[in-house]
Amino acid sequence: MDNTLALLTLCGSVIALLFAFTRARKVLKFSQGTDQMKKISASIHQGAMAYLRRQYRILIIFFAGMFLILLIMAALGFLTWYVPFAFVTGGFFSGLSGFVGMQIATRANARTAAACQKGLNKGLNVAFSAGSVMGFTVVGLGLLDISIWYLLLRLVFKLPVEEITSTMLTFGMGASSMALFARVGGGIYTKAADVGADLVGKVEAGIPEDDPRNPAVIADNVGDNVGDVAGMGADLYESYVGSILSACSLGVIAFSQIESVNNINAVIIPMVLAAVGVIASIIGSFLVKTGESTDQGTLLKALRRGTNTSAILIAVVAFPIVWFVLGRQFIGIYFAILAGLVAGVLIGFFTEYFTSDTYKPTKNLAEKSLTGSATIIIGGLSLGMLSTAVPIIIIAVCVMAAYGFSGGFESATQGLYGIALAAVGMLSTLGITLATDAYGPIADNAGGIAEMAGLDAEVRKRTDALDSLGNTTAATGKGFAIGSAALTALALIASYVEKVQEVGGDSIVLDMSVMNPAVLIGLFIGACLPFIFAALTMSSVGRAAQSIVVEVRRQFREIKGLMEGKAEADYRTCVDICTKASLKEMILPTLLAIVTPIVVGLVLGYNGVIGMLAGSTAAGFVMAVFMSNAGGAWDNAKKYIESGHHGGKGSEAHKAAVVGDTVGDPFKDTSGPSINILIKLLSMVSIVFAALVVNFHIF
Amino acid sequence: MDNTLALLTLCGSVIALLFAFTRARKVLKFSQGTDQMKKISASIHQGAMAYLRRQYRILIIFFAGMFLILLIMAALGFLTWYVPFAFVTGGFFSGLSGFVGMQIATRANARTAAACQKGLNKGLNVAFSAGSVMGFTVVGLGLLDISIWYLLLRLVFKLPVEEITSTMLTFGMGASSMALFARVGGGIYTKAADVGADLVGKVEAGIPEDDPRNPAVIADNVGDNVGDVAGMGADLYESYVGSILSACSLGVIAFSQIESVNNINAVIIPMVLAAVGVIASIIGSFLVKTGESTDQGTLLKALRRGTNTSAILIAVVAFPIVWFVLGRQFIGIYFAILAGLVAGVLIGFFTEYFTSDTYKPTKNLAEKSLTGSATIIIGGLSLGMLSTAVPIIIIAVCVMAAYGFSGGFESATQGLYGIALAAVGMLSTLGITLATDAYGPIADNAGGIAEMAGLDAEVRKRTDALDSLGNTTAATGKGFAIGSAALTALALIASYVEKVQEVGGDSIVLDMSVMNPAVLIGLFIGACLPFIFAALTMSSVGRAAQSIVVEVRRQFREIKGLMEGKAEADYRTCVDICTKASLKEMILPTLLAIVTPIVVGLVLGYNGVIGMLAGSTAAGFVMAVFMSNAGGAWDNAKKYIESGHHGGKGSEAHKAAVVGDTVGDPFKDTSGPSINILIKLLSMVSIVFAALVVNFHIF
Repeated sequence: MDNTLALLTLCGSVIALLFAFTRARKVLKFSQGTDQMKKISASIHQGAMAYLRRQYRILIIFFAGMFLILLIMAALGFLTWYVPFAFVTGGFFSGLSGFVGMQIATRANARTAAACQKGLNKGLNVAFSAGSVMGFTVVGLGLLDISIWYLLLRLVFKLPVEEITSTMLTFGMGASSMALFARVGGGIYTKAADVGADLVGKVEAGIPEDDPRNPAVIADNVGDNVGDVAGMGADLYESYVGSILSACSLGVIAFSQIESVNNINAVIIPMVLAAVGVIASIIGSFLVKTGESTDQGTLLKALRRGTNTSAILIAVVAFPIVWFVLGRQFIGIYFAILAGLVAGVLIGFFTEYFTSDTYKPTKNLAEKSLTGSATIIIGGLSLGMLSTAVPIIIIAVCVMAAYGFSGGFESATQGLYGIALAAVGMLSTLGITLATDAYGPIADNAGGIAEMAGLDAEVRKRTDALDSLGNTTAATGKGFAIGSAALTALALIASYVEKVQEVGGDSIVLDMSVMNPAVLIGLFIGACLPFIFAALTMSSVGRAAQSIVVEVRRQFREIKGLMEGKAEADYRTCVDICTKASLKEMILPTLLAIVTPIVVGLVLGYNGVIGMLAGSTAAGFVMAVFMSNAGGAWDNAKKYIESGHHGGKGSEAHKAAVVGDTVGDPFKDTSGPSINILIKLLSMVSIVFAALVVNFHIF
Repeated sequence: MDNTLALLTLCGSVIALLFAFTRARKVLKFSQGTDQMKKISASIHQGAMAYLRRQYRILIIFFAGMFLILLIMAALGFLTWYVPFAFVTGGFFSGLSGFVGMQIATRANARTAAACQKGLNKGLNVAFSAGSVMGFTVVGLGLLDISIWYLLLRLVFKLPVEEITSTMLTFGMGASSMALFARVGGGIYTKAADVGADLVGKVEAGIPEDDPRNPAVIADNVGDNVGDVAGMGADLYESYVGSILSACSLGVIAFSQIESVNNINAVIIPMVLAAVGVIASIIGSFLVKTGESTDQGTLLKALRRGTNTSAILIAVVAFPIVWFVLGRQFIGIYFAILAGLVAGVLIGFFTEYFTSDTYKPTKNLAEKSLTGSATIIIGGLSLGMLSTAVPIIIIAVCVMAAYGFSGGFESATQGLYGIALAAVGMLSTLGITLATDAYGPIADNAGGIAEMAGLDAEVRKRTDALDSLGNTTAATGKGFAIGSAALTALALIASYVEKVQEVGGDSIVLDMSVMNPAVLIGLFIGACLPFIFAALTMSSVGRAAQSIVVEVRRQFREIKGLMEGKAEADYRTCVDICTKASLKEMILPTLLAIVTPIVVGLVLGYNGVIGMLAGSTAAGFVMAVFMSNAGGAWDNAKKYIESGHHGGKGSEAHKAAVVGDTVGDPFKDTSGPSINILIKLLSMVSIVFAALVVNFHIF
């Protein structure tokens, strides 16, 4: 049965990719608008592609180097020969997801702006279709990679199932490394450009956002693409694949002692669930339609109808899947999946509650701008920190439920498998949730183009409405990303423990007690890592932004007639500065994430690594929520003021809010989301280098 | 032998208190300066006392309530009858330490200003003597409480040694609760006044700091006393006592199976070490003398001579103590103590490195002010986060060393005892380190008085030099406070584990593995607590500061002639607002710290509590370092600019730096230091309520 089901997964993948293809064709049929719009869109496209080309050039060196290291490790007997190849394919597909997403996004931006000339709903149609291309490409490529490797290892190389899953986990490491590079690099790019443009343009010169006189305006729009599109694509590819792979690897162990179930079925479940999720997402995405309303509430309802339908479909279909594949006595596992789905929705809702200006927290935050930038900064920081309580409780309940329902109190590995499946459940409808998420930056770009091309104010209003709607759906998306990251990271720690036992055999003395000093020290180091990582990425943004500030100031000063609109700004230099800075800055944080678990392992041993992973997962989850929510709230508090409250645009309150937003930018779009990847990459690296650490360690 | 040694501890306590008394008499002999200075000093004194009176009124209700709860618990058999009384004495002495410190500080401020008229060294003499009163009162009262209870329980009630130490731990909970109230309340007070005064006075009205026209200026100076003196006194009393008590309680267990040593000797060691530390500190403090130099480097050398001599003395004397009391084969424990001492010094040094403007990090941060407040905020946040790496590594090495040297790899409890003794070693010279720390706020106050009384600019320069020197020594002090907090918290977790086993007996199923879902969830909750706590305290400061801003603005607007210096500001209202606000705001965070471990215990059981304690200790340590260092760096970056760099006072860069400093204020003086207390209070509460949790819990 399992091969049939694996083929079904392959089918799901193909369907997703075909669907993405049809959506892409649909988008490309729309008009790009005026010549000027085409020109602007083209320069954004070129800037983005130039960035990607240079990024890939660096990454090829990295992947080649890692490939070599893994080959050597394999030669020394610490890894199987499949691992280096699996690693590379993971990285490749993750990068490809981002690439495809960006190709379509940079082509859809002008088209969205043009469509918005005809109406809000038309604009939504283009932007959402483009977002769908991204969403379904990610899930399609993810499932393709998984199912091909699975079928290859099982049918061609005929490996035992334990080796299949543990080999496949390695391409998780490839995907995670790639994702971290993309997120960090893209995040630095987009925020350096954004911050730089805002600080000089909005605050000092007092010109509007996306004003063509601002020399950093193209870089800013390129940034939306390389950060929020390419970065997010690679990121969610990693989350998606990571959750499935960790569930697969735990499934093998959880059911290895159970006679009534072939444990290969436990491996297949997450894959099938994901494949069914593709269908559910496609069905849902057809429901994203509305009449000619321009009311935001109606539009949001249309989007929600799509995502909710998909979620309900999965909730229904998962039941028979578990029942038939694992058997009636394991139906508790279904509730673990359900717990994940519900937790994702709840975290998403609370993310929105804390960051949307329709609720009290952000409204209160906006009020703090009246007493200056210091109070809005303090307010945002404490809002973000306070907001961590709710997701922590949700995840705590979800973990307990998933563990308990799937029988963890009788068999711990089954409980851990349940936790992993909760993450799969949460991400099963990624196709559509990502679509609703990815269309945001496209709308943002469309707004930029509308402004630069001098389109009617009404058009800009519509793109702004889309963008703002995008912020709401992005909040929900973030909930899923953060929640699934925590669950997947926990599952990966469990996989690491299993891996250590597998490679070490009887020589292993597992003592994971928090009173074991190795674990304890590991915990401390782990808790500190997200801080270090956030610091590195934030200061990168700060440094890069500062160079943009200097350059924009220089152009304002030196290019005569620029402020009067008589001369054109030198956009290319800003694009160049961003590209170089972000690529330079992305290397250190990522290397840190790869080197630390190895060093900790060699010094403190596997128990220390386990402590480190637990510490970084717990602290990283809290940090990610804190940074995302603080950043989101600052952003929306600023928008709230811009919509006319507390004196509106140009007031002192607005200036203070811009400072808040500027601090929040790297929080929510660089450091915060990268931490989600970090905590998984740490586990992935630990797993790949487990054999090395088991054989050599000081304590 | 042990009773003799306990009496020796009592002697140490009496010597410390006598020394404090002589210092106080010396301070009071100095002149208070002009009538105006007396008047200003008196209003600061009154404001501070009014605050304390009202605070104690609230705390009496709290302590009475807790006393009742503990009595009921004792009646139900969950506690011994001694516990409620021990709890109350801990709180009482902690409060008394703060009270005495503040009495002398508010009397020494004008005297320091007056002495500064004659020379920098004279000023140092007065301020440092007043600081010594505080330092030696804290250690004297701490040792008094400990030795009296010890002698009482041992000689009068004749309890077995296990019960003595476990009863004594309870007054740790009293001290911790008191400390948290004092730190949080005082911290909110001082920063609300400071932030409020700065935001309107310095930034908006452009008048200098401590200008008498600023209506919040008295409140600001009162704040220095209630926050940095009374709060710090209660805080360090708690640290000091907590480290000794946790070491005592672990000593009993570590040596219960060892025939060659009576385990009472292991209990006595930390007490004797502390008593010897008193003598070492007194000797050291006589060395704090310098010629008539006004050079900061020379002054710093004088202070360092004192602290270093004391540290070296302790390092030397601890060797024979361990040798004779525990025996030659346990001499490894000496090296654990030494590890603690060295770690304290190292953390202090790196704290200084990251926060002093003589080093690169803060200089670079100051440069970030050139591109505005957003970049200096981002810069400070990342500096603070990055700076966590070094103390984490130092503590990791210290923990490993203390554990290993004291034989932890053979007997885990001995290793944990070693960790506790490392904390005792770190704090043994608290008498003098606290003196060098506590004189800072006095100098700060003296500067305020000099400004308000219109003394010669030269005087203000001298008080500023003292203040700035105080910042450097405060950085070192903070290193000790944070480092010892982490080690003590770890020791307390170990004590909790022992306590659970003691009260639960055979019914206990300890599973402290991080893969146990209860531990895991506990970890997540624990990691989140410092964030929640920081959020609550920061937003309290924000709220209170905002009401000060509103009031100061109102006075500037409504009191005619105020800005011209013709009318007097209404200082009392600002003092009142701060008092009310801070007392109101201190309640929630402290209750949270007390209620959470009980709730977590009742739901997740003792394993969950252990996870929570480990998570909060790890994340709390990182957060405390982050917040303290970020705050310190912003403060000094501002001072660096004020000393003439990047445009100096009044420049745009300066304005940006003031925003940074304002955000940093609650970081370094409210939230950061409170987290140190929080992580210990959580353990203390868990220990006291252990029997309840062992008997009732859901999972």
